[in-house]
Amino acid sequence: MRVAVLGATGAVGRELMGVLERRRFPARELFALASSRSAGKTLPFGGGEVEVQDAEGFDFSVCDIVFCCVGSDTARRFVPRAIEAGCFVVDNSSAYRMQPDVPLVVPEINGDEVRPPLVANPNCTTAITLVALAPLHRRWRMRRLIAATYQAASGAGAVAISELLSHTDAALKGSKPKPCVFPRSIAFNLFPHIGDFAGSYTKEELKLEQETRKILNETDIKVSAFCVRVPVVRAHSVVAFVCFDDQPDPKEAEQLIMQSSGVELRKPYPTPMDAEGKDAVLVGRVRSDAALERALSLWIVGDQLLKGAALNAVQIGEKLLEVI
Amino acid sequence: MRVAVLGATGAVGRELMGVLERRRFPARELFALASSRSAGKTLPFGGGEVEVQDAEGFDFSVCDIVFCCVGSDTARRFVPRAIEAGCFVVDNSSAYRMQPDVPLVVPEINGDEVRPPLVANPNCTTAITLVALAPLHRRWRMRRLIAATYQAASGAGAVAISELLSHTDAALKGSKPKPCVFPRSIAFNLFPHIGDFAGSYTKEELKLEQETRKILNETDIKVSAFCVRVPVVRAHSVVAFVCFDDQPDPKEAEQLIMQSSGVELRKPYPTPMDAEGKDAVLVGRVRSDAALERALSLWIVGDQLLKGAALNAVQIGEKLLEVI
Repeated sequence: MRVAVLGATGAVGRELMGVLERRRFPARELFALASSRSAGKTLPFGGGEVEVQDAEGFDFSVCDIVFCCVGSDTARRFVPRAIEAGCFVVDNSSAYRMQPDVPLVVPEINGDEVRPPLVANPNCTTAITLVALAPLHRRWRMRRLIAATYQAASGAGAVAISELLSHTDAALKGSKPKPCVFPRSIAFNLFPHIGDFAGSYTKEELKLEQETRKILNETDIKVSAFCVRVPVVRAHSVVAFVCFDDQPDPKEAEQLIMQSSGVELRKPYPTPMDAEGKDAVLVGRVRSDAALERALSLWIVGDQLLKGAALNAVQIGEKLLEVI
Repeated sequence: MRVAVLGATGAVGRELMGVLERRRFPARELFALASSRSAGKTLPFGGGEVEVQDAEGFDFSVCDIVFCCVGSDTARRFVPRAIEAGCFVVDNSSAYRMQPDVPLVVPEINGDEVRPPLVANPNCTTAITLVALAPLHRRWRMRRLIAATYQAASGAGAVAISELLSHTDAALKGSKPKPCVFPRSIAFNLFPHIGDFAGSYTKEELKLEQETRKILNETDIKVSAFCVRVPVVRAHSVVAFVCFDDQPDPKEAEQLIMQSSGVELRKPYPTPMDAEGKDAVLVGRVRSDAALERALSLWIVGDQLLKGAALNAVQIGEKLLEVI
């Protein structure tokens, strides 16, 4: 396969190149694409280096598969070009996720929906949460998901990680720089504001609602999320209160999680630091919920850049290899 | 009033002395009590200094009121002595909170229960959460509270704040010291573990359940909490999903919060940094819940050392002045 990574210099793009290498994705050629600003830089790949090319003038007809790791506005410009040129595209952005003819895929859940020319990769929190909840949903049928998240800086990109580290360093030295990437100060602080507001919910919160329904193919699951940015580098945590049709059992839920791919049980609980760099989503503290009927609550942690982005995208690419 | 602060050198004790001063609590004399280790140190108070005395040999009969700011084991040793000596005691620990003959008080909610000789001060998360929810409970009657917390280091004491700051500094320099005060590393990390485990819930989570019922005098409210320690210095945040008997209205809920004492509406949302050093609990993002019936969800932030501990205790002391 001739592979292009669009947005190769970003946090997700860089991670994705590492995942391609590590999982020995059959990339005969790799094109690292970014904005003209980054053109000419080199990135490590396959023991050597690849030179970053300007995406703007790139002829997509020389590739078979494009991993699109840019924001949704940029994705809307490049995805049609890549499809037009005959590429299969895995898009990490939110641009096409809710389009009815575009599959939105977490391979452990609905990998059979992968088909050319375009598959959307879910929002990071959605992918991490659902890979943990899908085995429970299959067993007892999830009806409501009430989630509070603890989302790492990496979700806002490489610059956001720098801002977390440099502003924390400044705070320790007694100064308080103005936030740039984040809407509020992130040093020893947190805020319930990820994505723009769309009414009383944020777009991030609505993504968890809409994408959950689409991925599980269940239009009437009710989802309410509070998405919160926390001063953590790169793994997201989620507290999930989940109501089912049938009476769930926490011990059996643990068994189901242990038997499922993409998710691991860690007792008593994993932390974001434990999940950093791990492919598996980690789950702990599975319990009968004390306030809701026929409900479990649990703690879910996943690497935002891996299962939340790059890993899931490459897994979609792997599924494609089986299909074509 | 002749006032003693037991545990004067701790995070809560020091804060409490500041609150007594700031609110001009009529303290004719102030005794700062701590362990023999701290005896002889001085603490600033009332423009001058007070010398810390060893609590062990202290004759409580020289005081009228004792603010007990020590852990529950130590409280169990000293509270009976102080009561025996004729003092009125406000106990910050969990030792007596659930004892039926001891009032557990958030003055804005059940201040009329204050009476000699002993009043218990609630758990920090409980006090912060309930001062925000009480106006909504009075209007629509709360039936279920589902909460996920974001709890600051200060809740684990002054040493915990030092550990957060020093371990974060170490992490920025590339080293990773072993956790001492916390069960897991707190630098750029978080964990759902506050207090010991008691089955599948932690003691902190059970406190929110039991204390909520006692303070609101409603034995059948259902409470499920996930309490999480986060790398924040001194203000707790809470995501609350709240089901009511009657259909609530988010706009009216905002009005009720604006009209209530001890709580302020901050749109679109407050952060822990905004709440630091503030008496009022701050609330934002009040909305109809998308997943639960007759429910609101909202964001609550409060200074853990103030409304979560020292301020509430001093307010109890002030209520006593009205009673005696």
